[in-house]
Amino acid sequence: MDDSVARAAQVTASDVLAAQARLRRYLNPTPLHYAERFGCWLKLENLQRTGSYKVRGAMNALLVARERGDHRPTIAASAGNHAQGLAWAAYRLGMPAITVMPRTAPETKVAGVAHWGATVRLHGDSYDEAKAFAAELAAQHDYRLLPAFDDPDVIAGQGTVGLELAPLMPDVVLVPIGGGGLAAGVALALVSQGVKLVGAQVEGVDAMARALRGDTGAREPVATLADGVRVRDPGHLTRAVLQPLLDDIVIVREAELRETLVRLALEEHVIAEGAGALALAAGRRVPGKRKCAVVSGGNLDAGVLAALLRDIRPRPPRKPRRRVQEAPAAWAVDGPVLDIAEARAGASRLRPAAAARHATTPSAPAARFEDCPT
Amino acid sequence: MDDSVARAAQVTASDVLAAQARLRRYLNPTPLHYAERFGCWLKLENLQRTGSYKVRGAMNALLVARERGDHRPTIAASAGNHAQGLAWAAYRLGMPAITVMPRTAPETKVAGVAHWGATVRLHGDSYDEAKAFAAELAAQHDYRLLPAFDDPDVIAGQGTVGLELAPLMPDVVLVPIGGGGLAAGVALALVSQGVKLVGAQVEGVDAMARALRGDTGAREPVATLADGVRVRDPGHLTRAVLQPLLDDIVIVREAELRETLVRLALEEHVIAEGAGALALAAGRRVPGKRKCAVVSGGNLDAGVLAALLRDIRPRPPRKPRRRVQEAPAAWAVDGPVLDIAEARAGASRLRPAAAARHATTPSAPAARFEDCPT
Repeated sequence: MDDSVARAAQVTASDVLAAQARLRRYLNPTPLHYAERFGCWLKLENLQRTGSYKVRGAMNALLVARERGDHRPTIAASAGNHAQGLAWAAYRLGMPAITVMPRTAPETKVAGVAHWGATVRLHGDSYDEAKAFAAELAAQHDYRLLPAFDDPDVIAGQGTVGLELAPLMPDVVLVPIGGGGLAAGVALALVSQGVKLVGAQVEGVDAMARALRGDTGAREPVATLADGVRVRDPGHLTRAVLQPLLDDIVIVREAELRETLVRLALEEHVIAEGAGALALAAGRRVPGKRKCAVVSGGNLDAGVLAALLRDIRPRPPRKPRRRVQEAPAAWAVDGPVLDIAEARAGASRLRPAAAARHATTPSAPAARFEDCPT
Repeated sequence: MDDSVARAAQVTASDVLAAQARLRRYLNPTPLHYAERFGCWLKLENLQRTGSYKVRGAMNALLVARERGDHRPTIAASAGNHAQGLAWAAYRLGMPAITVMPRTAPETKVAGVAHWGATVRLHGDSYDEAKAFAAELAAQHDYRLLPAFDDPDVIAGQGTVGLELAPLMPDVVLVPIGGGGLAAGVALALVSQGVKLVGAQVEGVDAMARALRGDTGAREPVATLADGVRVRDPGHLTRAVLQPLLDDIVIVREAELRETLVRLALEEHVIAEGAGALALAAGRRVPGKRKCAVVSGGNLDAGVLAALLRDIRPRPPRKPRRRVQEAPAAWAVDGPVLDIAEARAGASRLRPAAAARHATTPSAPAARFEDCPT
């Protein structure tokens, strides 16, 4: 039997269901929110404990270990969210945990781990260096090494996101892909129900997309806002699960990602981290009647968010389709019409040209702007 | 019979129930989220259509008008959210709407109204000037004038927020108060169930608190981040409803409000506008076993949020209580311990002083920071 098939058989839909039963006591389901201007549902895992879905996999792995009578301290390498999830789960269960994070991890994620009382070791400049050091420490001290994604218990835990989406009856679900843990878990939970699963990766950080095409050469991922999915070597187990179940991977440009993140903040009042906005950004290219994108996390440094809000000016959202007939003359307010962009810019002069431009887009409802002298 | 009693009798709990039945077709219940580091539940009305609860009252009022056969165009004066709510409801029902907003209204709110195709008239520098102008237009053109809060249908609509909180079984509910529409509606929905209702106002913008004490002299409210509750004359009907039902009003300082808004963004990944963070800010002063604060809206200008994120550095949240016993020596990682604040600041030197300081706070779990040379 092919090695990858043997590995894939290590985790199945029933493991995801078992994980849901385990986690029910500790984690509430996160909200589903319809983002009207995007035409897409959002699964708000940024409102999850520790601000990302990663706590599900970590909690499930600790609970499974306890069931098996394995009481060794747990160690994990992580760019941030897996470490926070482990720290919270370990705090909640009164178990010891050590995390190794690269020095480049966002401040907010490092502070989050420390908040829940786990030991933090800052080591190396990338996830891969941190991972090697964690493995070394685990061997040295007989710690239990908990992988961030390539582990059956972790995949099963992340898959509970998918189970919580089922009542929505989506036709397409979009997830960000780094190592593939979330995607693999959600695939196990949903694909048998006829849901199409589409992954999202960033241009230049597309190791899983290449691996699924058969290109397994490691390539250093480029710098990206989506630090949470910046993975050089995707999981072997996750790949084996995803190969038959994943419908497609959409590659998102960095600029689209930034714009989506800012629009999420301004239009939906939701803060996503880079990886958290990735699935929604990919959603624009994917057709579907009832789409749902997983907002995987919200741990973004204040300075980064402030800079994005200052620098990115998203295009105004598409106008809703007209529901109301052309206004009867009786209630129409006389006077020339102003353009929204102009009103936004604070311009107070009336420009007939803007009115003419407006008249050429009949699909937009009549947005009338007037400046009434006081 | 006292005039105020006659007015109070105009709106009752059964009106709130009727509003819920009317709105069910158009608006989904908004999520409840437990903000762990605040120890408080949040009712996320910033995830409501148009980004605030105001759409409930406006929608209910339009539906009631339609039931009564009143098909006149509706006009409203608003600092922003009521106008957006009216615009959305009118769009949804295919009815005409006109809004008058002061020139000082936030850009995002003006753009939101225009997005849904309502007529926008910018007039005056304050809500009161806009209100007078709207009344004038209504009289002139026979429009239906929809008050922002002092109206039975509006109050009943806002009260549906309270009905959605009931399953949580809170002992205390906190709401921001401007004109009092939300507070009055929630009071009708919840107080008979034994829930304590506490209002929140900003220092210097406390017209309702003064009115309930009998001080009805109009005083110009000071400038505040919470533009949504900046009201000079609170409602008469709302006051009559609140007088017997409201437990208390907490006055929040502007600095507390700003800090709460930034903490909501960074710790809970939720964007609230000024008024939206007000109830949670007040929550710190109110005891309760199961508190819930209404995050009333999220329409905040990008520039304002960016500036707050840059300028405000919230104190780190209180440490969780220790659940784990002192770590056994077997798994403790050797070496000096670093302070979190120091690690956050990016310092990489080991400072024994920080370790000593840490040791003096035994209630905090052992957050260990180490810097491992690569």
